[in-house]
Amino acid sequence: MGNTNPMHVSCPLPHAPYGQITLAHGGGGSLMHELVQNVFFRTLDNPNLDGSSDSAVFAMGGQRLAFTTDSFVVKPLEFPGGNIGKLAVCGTINDLATSGARPLYLSLGVILEEGLSVELLQRIVQTIADTAKDAGVEVATGDTKVIERGNGDGIFINTTGIGVIEHDLTLGPRQIQPGDAILVNGSLGRHGMAVMAEREGLAFESALESDVAPLHGLVHALLEAGITLRCARDLTRGGLASALNEIAQTAGKTLRVSEQSAPVDPEVRDACEILGLDPLYVANEGRMAFIVPEEQAAQAMDVLMGWADAGMRPAHIGTVTDEPHGRVLLENAFGSARILDLLSGEQLPRIC
Amino acid sequence: MGNTNPMHVSCPLPHAPYGQITLAHGGGGSLMHELVQNVFFRTLDNPNLDGSSDSAVFAMGGQRLAFTTDSFVVKPLEFPGGNIGKLAVCGTINDLATSGARPLYLSLGVILEEGLSVELLQRIVQTIADTAKDAGVEVATGDTKVIERGNGDGIFINTTGIGVIEHDLTLGPRQIQPGDAILVNGSLGRHGMAVMAEREGLAFESALESDVAPLHGLVHALLEAGITLRCARDLTRGGLASALNEIAQTAGKTLRVSEQSAPVDPEVRDACEILGLDPLYVANEGRMAFIVPEEQAAQAMDVLMGWADAGMRPAHIGTVTDEPHGRVLLENAFGSARILDLLSGEQLPRIC
Repeated sequence: MGNTNPMHVSCPLPHAPYGQITLAHGGGGSLMHELVQNVFFRTLDNPNLDGSSDSAVFAMGGQRLAFTTDSFVVKPLEFPGGNIGKLAVCGTINDLATSGARPLYLSLGVILEEGLSVELLQRIVQTIADTAKDAGVEVATGDTKVIERGNGDGIFINTTGIGVIEHDLTLGPRQIQPGDAILVNGSLGRHGMAVMAEREGLAFESALESDVAPLHGLVHALLEAGITLRCARDLTRGGLASALNEIAQTAGKTLRVSEQSAPVDPEVRDACEILGLDPLYVANEGRMAFIVPEEQAAQAMDVLMGWADAGMRPAHIGTVTDEPHGRVLLENAFGSARILDLLSGEQLPRIC
Repeated sequence: MGNTNPMHVSCPLPHAPYGQITLAHGGGGSLMHELVQNVFFRTLDNPNLDGSSDSAVFAMGGQRLAFTTDSFVVKPLEFPGGNIGKLAVCGTINDLATSGARPLYLSLGVILEEGLSVELLQRIVQTIADTAKDAGVEVATGDTKVIERGNGDGIFINTTGIGVIEHDLTLGPRQIQPGDAILVNGSLGRHGMAVMAEREGLAFESALESDVAPLHGLVHALLEAGITLRCARDLTRGGLASALNEIAQTAGKTLRVSEQSAPVDPEVRDACEILGLDPLYVANEGRMAFIVPEEQAAQAMDVLMGWADAGMRPAHIGTVTDEPHGRVLLENAFGSARILDLLSGEQLPRIC
């Protein structure tokens, strides 16, 4: 078993005495990184698979293409602001967008559980069709499998996407420079808390809807405005904290984030308090972190503000430093900083 | 519910009084075709998604690319001759190969069930790596999700593939012509019966191994030999009978197949008899039907023979006719013919 056995995990995570997969392996935290590194990357060993990006980029026919895959297992299948179909289209579009690609084609692989309502399936497929059409993306190929009742959970969806990169920039954690500004396009944690509220039957005074949305248009708007985008990362599983940690570790640079500047809506903060969660680790499906040269930060913020819906609250939340440790420091209002670490597992299973 | 409700289905299939998904919807038969047509194709409405091909073909950067997706839910995960990982790589390679594409990149999306042995996972990923390497294909991007114990079945795998088409032919059912020859590259039904034998704990005198194998090399060899390949179709879910029905229906032409010429190994025939199955409907994972001009049939057979392992038994099994009905006729030794129809559902669930 060697390195594949996460036996050094301490409580309260379930430990895995026989080298078994635990829910924590799917949470976007350090256990998942270890699994992916040790079992997948090491075995499949190739240059595209290094974990530094959400999509592979390669040249074909004189063009640079981006290629990315994502499976969706969210529970419940429908939630305020969307459903698994919308998530499946937006998630893969956004992974392509993080490399600055224009998404062109999606594949759609569904695993259906015996007993699933055809009416619900129809609703989900209609959402997929509408979301793809609005985003200018074609669902070009598909596959359907059915598994016995009790073996699945209604529907699992895989979308895999192809996009084309129509600029000369290379986006990624290795491009970030000391002094660069860290921006986010809106308030954090809405998707995760909308799903959790639906799952747990929580009711809040104000509606808590998922932020799920395609963001390739926003990335395109930044590039069009002449922003030298260094790195874009969507803030899905594990939230802002996990995404910034991945960037920091790959770049070998410390990111400093201001706790006060990170936008969190009151209803999200309330829901997080009730459930004992930290909103900085909660999944988003329509939020990205953008790292841009400091001198372009104001202009990039203008683009984010122009693109944002009312109440979305884009923010300049931090800075890349020249401190060599690949970690994230969260500074509070009094100027003191604590390490914002990767969690081992995840706060929230089945969130995307 | 309208057209999405398959209420006209007759026994012995389970009927779906409330418009629910049944196992038969995943079987590659007429129920699955209806579901895919009514819920997916009609809703997603686009030219690539017409069911005539296993992969979408589009032009990008002056090249023709093929793009295809497949999910794998086989049970058990390991079987004589392979495992779900080998299946996942070969299945998608073969879907690309049916459009004459050279497979280049695969994505790998896995859904793991809590409790899965990491050792088994490692074995499956190693097989994926080895099979991809042998086939000259790069696993370029991946995704991992984990679901709770009892909600999945160990592991589900999605592979999505990109290939490049390096010739001027267009392959597909609409290309076939009256008089064309129908060839298969080897004996039928081995994969399905190997999985069923493992699942049911059947023991046979001779080893019954899956035929799972990548076939892009064979398609390339046919093209290299100058064969004007009209159509290639891999004989997976629903076997030879379902694949030929799909071709016949799309082409609007009747295919005549000789029952005597269709190669079935004795151990497969025996296993089918025990389980009450028809080998012509049993899944293969390393078998393709090739439709070629009659005058090139002998040369194409030479290529198939040269490529075949001992005992594989490629065969010239039939002919495209000018009869207008899009159906398949099976002729017996006495010259009389019966319609080889699509089954409504499937004989064998969870076979790929």
